[in-house]
Amino acid sequence: MTSTSGETDPRVVRSRARVLDAVAYLLVEKGVRGVTVEAVMARSGVARATVYRHWPTRQELVLAGLRHLLPPPVPPIAVDGTLAQRLTSSLGELARQMSVEPWAHAIPALLEAARREPEIAAATARFVADRQAPLRAVLREAVEGGALPPVDVELALAELLGPFVYRRLITSEPLDEALCANVVEDFLRGHAARDTADAVAGLSSPGATAHDGPPTTVEG
Amino acid sequence: MTSTSGETDPRVVRSRARVLDAVAYLLVEKGVRGVTVEAVMARSGVARATVYRHWPTRQELVLAGLRHLLPPPVPPIAVDGTLAQRLTSSLGELARQMSVEPWAHAIPALLEAARREPEIAAATARFVADRQAPLRAVLREAVEGGALPPVDVELALAELLGPFVYRRLITSEPLDEALCANVVEDFLRGHAARDTADAVAGLSSPGATAHDGPPTTVEG
Repeated sequence: MTSTSGETDPRVVRSRARVLDAVAYLLVEKGVRGVTVEAVMARSGVARATVYRHWPTRQELVLAGLRHLLPPPVPPIAVDGTLAQRLTSSLGELARQMSVEPWAHAIPALLEAARREPEIAAATARFVADRQAPLRAVLREAVEGGALPPVDVELALAELLGPFVYRRLITSEPLDEALCANVVEDFLRGHAARDTADAVAGLSSPGATAHDGPPTTVEG
Repeated sequence: MTSTSGETDPRVVRSRARVLDAVAYLLVEKGVRGVTVEAVMARSGVARATVYRHWPTRQELVLAGLRHLLPPPVPPIAVDGTLAQRLTSSLGELARQMSVEPWAHAIPALLEAARREPEIAAATARFVADRQAPLRAVLREAVEGGALPPVDVELALAELLGPFVYRRLITSEPLDEALCANVVEDFLRGHAARDTADAVAGLSSPGATAHDGPPTTVEG
């Protein structure tokens, strides 16, 4: 015999799933303002009392629908591989998540709602921070290990993630492997070059230990 | 005596301005879906017949309100100055425009509406293309003049504009002079470094003419 109470009651599980699917559909198709208890009841066929028992407020219903809609957390980046490989892998995973429907479709509606509703803004900020975490860890570790000169990690995140956000939200160009590879390549060259310039200016830098050859010189 | 017909009739000018202010207010506060003829009449105090005489459809009303709300076109970038100065100046102007209220406040609502309404999407695409044009011109000219190695201009736009879009829409960090300077500096170093690598790989490049000294060599 299986338990028939609480979360494991198959009827409860089914009606919760139907409600969450309905909220996710409404979020994507109508935006956050489209998530009303009436619309959720109409689409899910679940009774008002059942909806309110699980999600006492509309805000909780919206947040549960968002969590249902959002892609699962990014797996930790493997510690092996070159810095370029780890950055490319981390960006590739984020690009993939940003391209998955219906989530991709819902991003502008979510940003628009975040501007109006503080709880949606807080949920979005947590979501963004969770997604940034692996990339942030790769950057910090690279600086500590000397593979990258000291960088402003927030600036680095803007330079690495910005092109993806720009293409996703502004131009609708594809977030493909070429973009990942080019952005990482240009980022690493840009920052390695800065390291060289700093060294020339007489600044000491932990990044200097990453050079595997003698310093570059200009003849003439 | 002044003309009392058409666009120059001061009463017509005043009621047009009141309607456009009302549409802009509704766009910012309620999003595109908040722009209904009823709401415009209520806020502007202008009669339905007058609204319809100037803007026969709701779509035209929304587009007129957007044009009223959007900042004026970016002035052409001065041709003098170094490439870094011209890129920084162009990005600085775009950053300033992205930060001006109420436009800054309206961006997510506009993107959300663009996803739903083809005419809003077309207006947004034209707006984006107009704003990209000066930066695109600076990049093309730099490549032609040899100040920059051949670059994928669309990739370059994503790398230069992406950090600004990311901060404006995702993290709400400031779009300040430091961001402009750092993004341009890292971009130029990343691409100059690529030029060097291409030269090493035996690829010819118009960018080579930009070097004002003999080639860099590695000793050892």
